[in-house]
Amino acid sequence: MDEILNYISILGAFAFAISGALTAMNNKFDPFGVLIIAFVTAVGGGTMRDILVEGKPVFWLYEPAYIYFIVAGTVFAIVFRAKLNLMLKPLFFFDTVGLALYTVIGVQVGLAYDLNYINCIILGTLTGAFGGVIRDILVNEVPVIFKKEIYATVSILGGALYLFIDRFWWSHPAMQFIPILFIIVLRLLIVHYKVAFPTLYKGDKPKA
Amino acid sequence: MDEILNYISILGAFAFAISGALTAMNNKFDPFGVLIIAFVTAVGGGTMRDILVEGKPVFWLYEPAYIYFIVAGTVFAIVFRAKLNLMLKPLFFFDTVGLALYTVIGVQVGLAYDLNYINCIILGTLTGAFGGVIRDILVNEVPVIFKKEIYATVSILGGALYLFIDRFWWSHPAMQFIPILFIIVLRLLIVHYKVAFPTLYKGDKPKA
Amino acid sequence: MDEILNYISILGAFAFAISGALTAMNNKFDPFGVLIIAFVTAVGGGTMRDILVEGKPVFWLYEPAYIYFIVAGTVFAIVFRAKLNLMLKPLFFFDTVGLALYTVIGVQVGLAYDLNYINCIILGTLTGAFGGVIRDILVNEVPVIFKKEIYATVSILGGALYLFIDRFWWSHPAMQFIPILFIIVLRLLIVHYKVAFPTLYKGDKPKA
Repeated sequence: MDEILNYISILGAFAFAISGALTAMNNKFDPFGVLIIAFVTAVGGGTMRDILVEGKPVFWLYEPAYIYFIVAGTVFAIVFRAKLNLMLKPLFFFDTVGLALYTVIGVQVGLAYDLNYINCIILGTLTGAFGGVIRDILVNEVPVIFKKEIYATVSILGGALYLFIDRFWWSHPAMQFIPILFIIVLRLLIVHYKVAFPTLYKGDKPKA
Repeated sequence: MDEILNYISILGAFAFAISGALTAMNNKFDPFGVLIIAFVTAVGGGTMRDILVEGKPVFWLYEPAYIYFIVAGTVFAIVFRAKLNLMLKPLFFFDTVGLALYTVIGVQVGLAYDLNYINCIILGTLTGAFGGVIRDILVNEVPVIFKKEIYATVSILGGALYLFIDRFWWSHPAMQFIPILFIIVLRLLIVHYKVAFPTLYKGDKPKA
Repeated sequence: MDEILNYISILGAFAFAISGALTAMNNKFDPFGVLIIAFVTAVGGGTMRDILVEGKPVFWLYEPAYIYFIVAGTVFAIVFRAKLNLMLKPLFFFDTVGLALYTVIGVQVGLAYDLNYINCIILGTLTGAFGGVIRDILVNEVPVIFKKEIYATVSILGGALYLFIDRFWWSHPAMQFIPILFIIVLRLLIVHYKVAFPTLYKGDKPKA
């Protein structure tokens, strides 16, 4: 896999570490608890991806850079906590960036291991979303993915877009920035305009 | 593995997908959330089995039929939701069918990989019950397996029965329908007659 | 791996099985539920370790002794339940012993598979703490690791101490008892003197 992919992956770990650390601090975890949630959020999705794809070694176990960037993201979140809370929904923003970066990486791994297209998209969504799911399970909340903001849908659409570009238009590393931006912008728009799925539950209000 | 086994496995995925989709709808998840819970419930047990058994590729990643049947089960549950709720405990029924089918498959995989008998039964129970455990964790409930209806016990007994038939009586593919029916009927009977384990907790009422 | 390591690992499974069984009984699980929580607590950390480290078979699947000792620990916890509840925090004690034994084993596996030092310590902490995390998730509590008693910190410090002794002082099997005792004593002291991390949350009381 190319170098750009590696940088994207580390950047994703950094973003998810911040999102994990903020969630942990919102739940009043002690400093090491904050670090652990940051770590699990950052590596959770990619670890599950590597476990599922046969013969793929777990990415962070043999590449120390991840640990450094996860610690850096955690320290960043702790130090700038007060300022981050003044920003509009920083947890939401870093979570979205991580989702976008990891989705694209997951799809790429699927392509590299010759999975069919549906499973490539599943692998992308799983890589993007699973870290956040574990984070929410560990702090004992219903994972955000299931209740709000059409989280998984955005990842699936972004993964499908990337697959389409890569297979049918232009397979070039720079092209991966298109689905990354697509996911980030789409999720921001969806949340800003409070778009929601048509509800399955007549008489109830939609949740998203 | 023989063809019958493959059909049983896909049927189990279908049944568990329905059970997962119903649980998600009871918790008012959005449509993609419903699909995800259906997917995780359907593949969770088998995925854990394949991860644990060395060198076994994860079953759904290389066999697209599972995805189609999981989607079909989810759509079925969504479309017939109103009618399903009129039936007596459909969630319970599909969950039991999935448990029975996956238990037998898990034991067979254990035999194929030369595990000892105890671990074959554990693998069967894990394959049968783990999808439902993840389902319940994701919707933030104490997994039904631990509190009600002697869920795991039925799976263990069914797995042991299958092992006994296969090793000491008649090793024939058709024989696997005996433990499957045994598990379904036993669980139905236990729930109908409200059989419960003798409680460990003096002065308390039994939970089952 | 040497024989002492094997005995330590089985002893750790025994201790964690007791801790899991006690937790399950505190939550009024039925007998098989108690056994399952005991099993998951006992093998959870080691299983995650073996899944992550490439090419390492899952330890309990090919070594029946673990099952026997887990059943023994469960029966022990059930039989002596009343007496255990008279003792001071038996759950806490067995959990600490399991944490200490599994931390050292995890670090040793990391060394055997040539991981870098940071990942050896992570593997040790994960092996030691993950079983308890799953136990707490399954009974639907925020894992104790994140809220109380500087649980992970003790494991990380013990793992680092073992690494230091093994690499820079004396690499001898008997040396592993030093970090094991260190972890047990340190955690007992921390809880007894109610030591807590300096809090990140001004104006709040520390949690530990």
